[in-house]
Amino acid sequence: MAGIQVMIGRTDDAGEAGNTSGTFYGIGVGPGDPELMTLKATRLIAACPVIAYPVNGGGGGLARRIAGAAVPPQAEELPIHLPMLAERAPAREAYDLAAGKIATQLAAGRDVAFLCEGDPFFYGSFMYLFSRLAEDFPAEVVPGVTSLTACAAALGRPLAARSERLKVLPATLSEEVLRHELADTEAAAIIKVGRHFEKLRRILGDLGLAEGAAIVEAATREDQRITALTEVPPGERPYFSTILVYGGGEGW
Amino acid sequence: MAGIQVMIGRTDDAGEAGNTSGTFYGIGVGPGDPELMTLKATRLIAACPVIAYPVNGGGGGLARRIAGAAVPPQAEELPIHLPMLAERAPAREAYDLAAGKIATQLAAGRDVAFLCEGDPFFYGSFMYLFSRLAEDFPAEVVPGVTSLTACAAALGRPLAARSERLKVLPATLSEEVLRHELADTEAAAIIKVGRHFEKLRRILGDLGLAEGAAIVEAATREDQRITALTEVPPGERPYFSTILVYGGGEGW
Repeated sequence: MAGIQVMIGRTDDAGEAGNTSGTFYGIGVGPGDPELMTLKATRLIAACPVIAYPVNGGGGGLARRIAGAAVPPQAEELPIHLPMLAERAPAREAYDLAAGKIATQLAAGRDVAFLCEGDPFFYGSFMYLFSRLAEDFPAEVVPGVTSLTACAAALGRPLAARSERLKVLPATLSEEVLRHELADTEAAAIIKVGRHFEKLRRILGDLGLAEGAAIVEAATREDQRITALTEVPPGERPYFSTILVYGGGEGW
Repeated sequence: MAGIQVMIGRTDDAGEAGNTSGTFYGIGVGPGDPELMTLKATRLIAACPVIAYPVNGGGGGLARRIAGAAVPPQAEELPIHLPMLAERAPAREAYDLAAGKIATQLAAGRDVAFLCEGDPFFYGSFMYLFSRLAEDFPAEVVPGVTSLTACAAALGRPLAARSERLKVLPATLSEEVLRHELADTEAAAIIKVGRHFEKLRRILGDLGLAEGAAIVEAATREDQRITALTEVPPGERPYFSTILVYGGGEGW
């Protein structure tokens, strides 16, 4: 990544200033409800001649499904096969390959929109493509609504307020680390719950945090489901599940 | 607040099912760029006969300015005077008064959209109105893009990735608490920087975290400004400033 520069003003549409390369857009399409796409995402998806999106890994083809009919029929669709993050060396090869495909389009002067579920820079794999392409081509990230605030909205309860500290904790962390972080928390969101659910229920129960906690699955989608943590039947939960935890806050 | 219920499916437009009361919508209008409003926010702002928004406190009239021409000329505008959060008892009175004004509209069967800068449930004062109104009237929160991911997008650097823990820390916390939280961090966002800037610079310098940190002011607005922490001149920064800190992460 290039060093931090002092910049003033928005960086919209950086590629339009007489550059012969296309611009690489990372576009957050929000948590699931197509109406939670931004006006900017919709405009750029309609305007870019090439629409790329992940087709496996944690997100499946979800980002493409969210974009739906916002992708015009004449767009060239570029599905990108991305592996799960755990596979280190093969993952690097896959990202190199994907970046190469996108670079070919950009070098030909065609803008490429890469669709990202939620926000491109909030726990996504988009960063691996951005890091490979942003030094050679104009690149811009369009932020999106994250599942984090979508879950709070669905639950009808603030994520955090006033001077509360908010922790975002991936469920993939070790039990030891999770216990350490949650033992001293005012507000926390545990993301990517999936097969880690029973571990989390045990930890939250031990720490006396189970009572106020809830799990939100598939926030803002048709199959959204909200359940008090104490009511969840045993077993795994979907990958796209978030547990919201309310600890020693001031209350409201 | 009502207890957590098991709910399946989206709760869109809860007030339209033959209810004679209007629906209270908390609408996130995003961090500043009007194009970062969602399609849903835009639709509801155009449809609601009453548009309410805060006119003082931390947010000023910013949410209304972001919504701009999305508010139709025939809408009844309801500016709500909200005090700063520090004033406890007068604040309660002001929220009671504001909630009463909104309740009058809802009871008359008119939908009210309350505009919130960023996301309604991410460190906003909207929750104080929601808690007063959501038990008596249909209420729905429409999540928005937060300044958090907008800052990461502006900076061209992920907020957090993989199994990193992300901490969101209000700058109003005491120096002791901030030192404790930042001493053990992989990724952090310090929000509402304002007059706390020099305290934060001192802490981050002491902890060896100043080098990779940057401050983003007025993210996605016309006057957006990004500066490496080590380059910031002495003094206060605007209230709507966020410092992004990158600690012991794996790098990318």
